[in-house]
Amino acid sequence: MIIVTKRGVTQDEVDHIRERVESLGLRTHVSQGEHHTVIGCVGDESRLEGVSLLAIPGVDTVHAVMRPYKLASRDFAADPTQIPLGGVQIGGPEVLVIAGPCSVESREMLLATANSIKSHGAKALRGGAFKPRTSPYSFRGLGEEGLEILAEIRAETGMPIVTEVMDTRQVDLVASYADMLQVGARNMQNYNLLTEVGRLRRPVLLKRGMSATVEDLLLAAEYVMSQGNPNVVLCERGIRTFGTATRNTFDLAAIPVLKQETHLPVIADPSHAGGRRDLVAPLSYAAIAAGADGLMIEVHPQPETATSDGDQSLDFPEFATLMETLRPFVAAAGRVLAE
Amino acid sequence: MIIVTKRGVTQDEVDHIRERVESLGLRTHVSQGEHHTVIGCVGDESRLEGVSLLAIPGVDTVHAVMRPYKLASRDFAADPTQIPLGGVQIGGPEVLVIAGPCSVESREMLLATANSIKSHGAKALRGGAFKPRTSPYSFRGLGEEGLEILAEIRAETGMPIVTEVMDTRQVDLVASYADMLQVGARNMQNYNLLTEVGRLRRPVLLKRGMSATVEDLLLAAEYVMSQGNPNVVLCERGIRTFGTATRNTFDLAAIPVLKQETHLPVIADPSHAGGRRDLVAPLSYAAIAAGADGLMIEVHPQPETATSDGDQSLDFPEFATLMETLRPFVAAAGRVLAE
Amino acid sequence: MIIVTKRGVTQDEVDHIRERVESLGLRTHVSQGEHHTVIGCVGDESRLEGVSLLAIPGVDTVHAVMRPYKLASRDFAADPTQIPLGGVQIGGPEVLVIAGPCSVESREMLLATANSIKSHGAKALRGGAFKPRTSPYSFRGLGEEGLEILAEIRAETGMPIVTEVMDTRQVDLVASYADMLQVGARNMQNYNLLTEVGRLRRPVLLKRGMSATVEDLLLAAEYVMSQGNPNVVLCERGIRTFGTATRNTFDLAAIPVLKQETHLPVIADPSHAGGRRDLVAPLSYAAIAAGADGLMIEVHPQPETATSDGDQSLDFPEFATLMETLRPFVAAAGRVLAE
Amino acid sequence: MIIVTKRGVTQDEVDHIRERVESLGLRTHVSQGEHHTVIGCVGDESRLEGVSLLAIPGVDTVHAVMRPYKLASRDFAADPTQIPLGGVQIGGPEVLVIAGPCSVESREMLLATANSIKSHGAKALRGGAFKPRTSPYSFRGLGEEGLEILAEIRAETGMPIVTEVMDTRQVDLVASYADMLQVGARNMQNYNLLTEVGRLRRPVLLKRGMSATVEDLLLAAEYVMSQGNPNVVLCERGIRTFGTATRNTFDLAAIPVLKQETHLPVIADPSHAGGRRDLVAPLSYAAIAAGADGLMIEVHPQPETATSDGDQSLDFPEFATLMETLRPFVAAAGRVLAE
Repeated sequence: MIIVTKRGVTQDEVDHIRERVESLGLRTHVSQGEHHTVIGCVGDESRLEGVSLLAIPGVDTVHAVMRPYKLASRDFAADPTQIPLGGVQIGGPEVLVIAGPCSVESREMLLATANSIKSHGAKALRGGAFKPRTSPYSFRGLGEEGLEILAEIRAETGMPIVTEVMDTRQVDLVASYADMLQVGARNMQNYNLLTEVGRLRRPVLLKRGMSATVEDLLLAAEYVMSQGNPNVVLCERGIRTFGTATRNTFDLAAIPVLKQETHLPVIADPSHAGGRRDLVAPLSYAAIAAGADGLMIEVHPQPETATSDGDQSLDFPEFATLMETLRPFVAAAGRVLAE
Repeated sequence: MIIVTKRGVTQDEVDHIRERVESLGLRTHVSQGEHHTVIGCVGDESRLEGVSLLAIPGVDTVHAVMRPYKLASRDFAADPTQIPLGGVQIGGPEVLVIAGPCSVESREMLLATANSIKSHGAKALRGGAFKPRTSPYSFRGLGEEGLEILAEIRAETGMPIVTEVMDTRQVDLVASYADMLQVGARNMQNYNLLTEVGRLRRPVLLKRGMSATVEDLLLAAEYVMSQGNPNVVLCERGIRTFGTATRNTFDLAAIPVLKQETHLPVIADPSHAGGRRDLVAPLSYAAIAAGADGLMIEVHPQPETATSDGDQSLDFPEFATLMETLRPFVAAAGRVLAE
Repeated sequence: MIIVTKRGVTQDEVDHIRERVESLGLRTHVSQGEHHTVIGCVGDESRLEGVSLLAIPGVDTVHAVMRPYKLASRDFAADPTQIPLGGVQIGGPEVLVIAGPCSVESREMLLATANSIKSHGAKALRGGAFKPRTSPYSFRGLGEEGLEILAEIRAETGMPIVTEVMDTRQVDLVASYADMLQVGARNMQNYNLLTEVGRLRRPVLLKRGMSATVEDLLLAAEYVMSQGNPNVVLCERGIRTFGTATRNTFDLAAIPVLKQETHLPVIADPSHAGGRRDLVAPLSYAAIAAGADGLMIEVHPQPETATSDGDQSLDFPEFATLMETLRPFVAAAGRVLAE
Repeated sequence: MIIVTKRGVTQDEVDHIRERVESLGLRTHVSQGEHHTVIGCVGDESRLEGVSLLAIPGVDTVHAVMRPYKLASRDFAADPTQIPLGGVQIGGPEVLVIAGPCSVESREMLLATANSIKSHGAKALRGGAFKPRTSPYSFRGLGEEGLEILAEIRAETGMPIVTEVMDTRQVDLVASYADMLQVGARNMQNYNLLTEVGRLRRPVLLKRGMSATVEDLLLAAEYVMSQGNPNVVLCERGIRTFGTATRNTFDLAAIPVLKQETHLPVIADPSHAGGRRDLVAPLSYAAIAAGADGLMIEVHPQPETATSDGDQSLDFPEFATLMETLRPFVAAAGRVLAE
C-alpha cells in the first residue's frame, strides 16, 4: 500500500500515519516529494484490508500494490487449474460446451433437449430448477421437482448436470443432485451463499455480477476457495452499461484478462451476454477466439413458448449449426472440442 | 404491450403472433403502417410477463405500456404510505435521520455513538452485526453478539434499531432483535431473501443495488409487498458508473422519480453514495432538497479505527454540525426534522 | 508517479526503468517489498505526461501522485475565482440563474422569454443559434440570424447572453455577439475548439461531457486556461449511465468534488440532467444545496411547440414558481440570489 | 411513433395530442386500453424527429417504431457496401488490416514501421499528424509536417494512408494528403466536422464515441452520408463503463449488431479497446470471429519511447506474430486476409 499525503501535511500527521500502519505490523518508508510525502507500507498488505486509511488526517490518496485476492491469483498457482466435469477437464486443452434450457419445464422437454445437444457435441446439461426472476409474478422454476427431472435425464443420457443454487438453505439439496453448482450473476456478492458452496468440493460455476469488476469477480471466487473448495469456474456473461442494443454488454476482454490474473478456468455465456438468439453464434466464436475454456448456451425445443429466456434460446437446428460452425474457431485457437 | 413487426413480415407471421398473444387471454389490435405492422395487446399485460415475444418469428421490437410493478406503484395507492419507526412516520411531514456505525464493534462504542447521535436529533440507530464484505479476509461483523448489543443499547436509549439481514437463514433471528430490517445493495436481487422478509410485517429498508434501475428497485419492493409486507422504505445509495471521484455515483434524480412512481417512502444514504466524509454534508442537504423522507448516516467515535467504512464515517462533532446545518434545508423543503 | 514492478522483475529491468525515468529529468527512489519493487519518481511529474511507462518491460502498474491539471487546481489558486457576467460575480456569494430557450426560434419568442425570466430573477439569457443535434434531420438552429436576435434582445432587456459555439470557424463570429461562450457536452473534448476559446478573454461556460470524469472536465478547462483565458465556468449536466428513468444521470456529487478540486465556479444544468420538466425544480434545489454557484434552466413560451428540448423546458409560470421556491434553498446554503 | 397516455387522460387531451401529430402530416389511430389510451402515429415518422411529444399534457411515454437513420440502414441498401482502399474492397470478402504508429514521430520511424507492417500483410498505414490529447501538456502531433511525411511514405511503399482530422478548418488540408479520413471517438458528435467530411467523397473512418450507443454511431454516419458521402467505415473501439481492467470496454457484440443494422463496413480497433499490448491479439481474433471487416492496430518500432499510446502499441515482432496467428481465425470466419 502506498499512501500519498495532502499538500501541507504536518510532521505530526505523517508520524501519526506511520504509527497507525506500523501498529498493524507493517513497516513504513517515507519519501519526500516537492509537494507530497509518499509513505510506502512494506509487509503483509492484507493486514490493511478494510482499514480506513483515508480517514487518517493528512492522507490524500491510497494506492494498493498487491492484488487483494490470493488463492485465485496467478501468484498462488502458476499452472492453469483443471476442473473435471463429466470426463472433461475444464481449463485443459479441450473446450467444453454446456447447453440446455433456461428452466426445466418438464421431463419431456428436458430429455428431448439433452438428446439433441448431446448428439451435437455438448458435454454437460444446464437447466434451472430455482430461477431468479426480476418480477415476482414470473415463473420461478419447478424447485425440487426440477432437480429430480435433471437427475433422471442424467441417468438416461449420462450427461452431468449444472444447475443454479440461489439460497443458503438449498445448498445441500441442490448439491445432492447437481454435478456443478451455478451461482448466478445476481448472487455473485451473496457472500453467505459463496461461503456455503465453499464448504463443498463440488465444482462451482461462478457467474460475473452485472456491475462486478474483474477484481470483484476474483474476490468472489476467493470467498469460495478460502472455505476450502478450489473448484471454481468463472463465467463472463455481460455487464450493465449504457448500451441498449443488447441485453448486457459482453465484456470479451475480461476473458484474456482473467486468464492472466487467475489460474481458474473461464467460460462465457453468450446467451445472456447478448440476450438475442442471432448473437449467440458470433459471440460464441469470439469467446473461443479470445481464449475461453468453454461456453454455456441456452437451448429450447421451441423458444417462443419458453417460460423464461426464450428470446435468447437457440432451437435444436440452430444449436446444431452453431456446433458445426464453431469447430474451425476452436481449431484456430489451438484447442479441441471435448468429445 | 405493443409489438412492432419486422419489415417484410408475412400475414402468416402476423396471424401467428396474434394467436400467441390471444392464447394468453389478451386481445390484439392490428395497425398497418407503411413499413411495419403494429400489434397492440389489450388486456392484462402482466400475463405477458416473461413471455418470449421476441422469439416469435416476425417480431422486431416489443414496447411495454404498463409498469411491471403493481403494489408499489402510484396507481395502487395514490397517497404516500407512512411507515412507523420509533414514533416517527417515515414518509410523513417529518424527516427521519438514522445514524450509527457501519459495524457494531463493541457495547461501549455503540452506546457512546447512540447517546451522541440521539442528543443531536437522530431518531433511529443503525449498526451492522452481519456485514457483507468484498474480501473474505475483512471483518464480517460480530453476528448474534452484535444483535444483542444493539438490543441492549435500544433498551438504554429508547432508539429503534436498523440492522442488515444477509441470509434467509438469519431472517427470524435478525427480526427478533431489529425494529427495521435492512436489505443491502448486494442483496437487492436476492429474491429468496426478499420473499422471507416479505413474510414478516417488520419494516424493511431496501437499498438500491449498484446496477439496479429504478424499475428494478421497484420490482424488488414488489417482491416484499407481494408476500404481504407493505412496509418497505426505499434507499438511494449510489450506483456504479464510470466515475472514479466518488465511491458510487449518487443518483439524486432517482429520489423525485421514485416519489412520483411509488407511494413508498424514499430515503438517501449519503455515506455510501459518496464514500467520503467530506461529501456527507452536501449530499445530505441535496437529498432533502430533492424530496427525500430521511437520511441514513454512518457515524463512528473514531473513524480512522473503524473496522469498516471509516473513510465515509463522521465523528461526533461532524455529525453534530451536520444536523445543525441540515435544519434550514429541511425547512426550505417544507418539512420538519423528526423530534 | 509511483511505478510498481511485476513479480520476478530482474535487476536489469529495474535499472532500465530507472534510466528511462531519470532521462526525463526526475529522480527515482527504489523500495524493495516482499513481492514487488516500488520505484518512486520524484520531481516534475508533468514530464511523465503521456510517457508509456507500462510499455517498459517489468512494469506492472503506475500510480499518479500529482493531479494532471495545474492552472485549474486548488493548488494554483486557493481562493475561488469570480467571473463577472452582467454585473454578477459568478463564484461569489451570489447565485446566478441563466435561463432561456434551447434554441432561438424567433425574435418574438426570445423577447417574451427574456422579459418573463428577467422579471422573475434570471440575470442572463441563454439561447442557441448553432445547435448540435443527434440527427442530421433535426432543426440545427438559425445560425447568425439567431445571434443577431440575441444581440437585439440584449439591447432591449440589458441581459447578457450565453450561447453555444460548436466550430472553430465560428469562434470569432459567436464571440462578437456573446457575453459568454458555451462549449457543449459533445465538444468538451474538441481540443481545437477549447484552444480557440482559450485565445479570447470572454468567459467560457464549459459543459461536462457525457462520459467525462471530473478529471477529464478539469483537463478540458486546463486547455482553455493554458491558452491564457482564466474565465472558465464549469457546468454539471448529467452523465451517461445504465439508468433509463432520466435522460442523463445527474452527478450531483461532482459539484462539491469540483468545488474542492478547483477554484473555478461550478453551475448545474438541471434541464439536461433530468431531461424532464417535472425534475427541473428538485434538481435545482439540490444543486444549490450541494454548493452550486448557479443554474442554467431551459424556458420556452410554449414547450410543446419547441423546436428542441421541449420535453425539459419550463413554461413561464413554471419558471416563476421555480424561482420563488428556490429562494429558501439559496438562503439555507448561505447564499443570495443575484438581483 | 406510438404515444401512450397517462392514466386519467381527458378526452380533450387526447384530441389535442392527435391534432398536434396530425398537424405535422401524420395520421393517428387510437386504441383504448383499460388504463391507458394508445395513439399510433402512422406516416413519415421522421417528421416527429425532435418534436417534444412528452411536453404535451397527458402524454406518458413515447415509443419509436422506425429507426431514426435512413441512409445508413439495411432498409436503404440490403447489400453490404464495399469501400475501396488501396486495392482492397472494405466490406467485401477480404479482411483488411490497417496498422501503424499512433503518432507520426519522424520520417525514419514511419518508414521503418510501414516497411515492417507491409511485409507482414497490413494493407494500409495509419499515423496521426493531429492528435487529440486529454492533457494540453502532451504531444499533439507534428501537424502538416506529419501529413507530408505520411505522403512521402505512401510514395515509397505504395500503402494508402489513414489519418485523423480534428478540426473543420483542416478538412481540406488533411484530405489533400489522406486516402481515408479518420474521425476520432471524441469527435463522433462533432456535427460540423461530420458535415465537412460528408462534402467530400474520400472514405471516412468513423470511430465510435466513448459513450455512443449503436444508434448514436449510425446517426453520426447518417450526418456524413446525408451530405453526399456514402463511403463510411464504422469502427468499434471500446466504450466507457465502470470497468477498470482495460482502458475501455470492447463492445464486441456491437460488431454483429452493426452488421445487421447497417450495410456499411465495420472494423475494430483492439489497441484502443483494451489499451494493453497483451490484449491486442485476443481482441483481434475475437473481432474477426464476430464478423469484423478489418482491424486497425497500433505498431511502433519501440513502444516504450512512443510519444503516445506506447502502452498499447505492438513492436514489429509482435505484429508479425499477430498476423500469422490471425490467419486461421480469418479462415474460420470464411474470409481471406487482403493480399
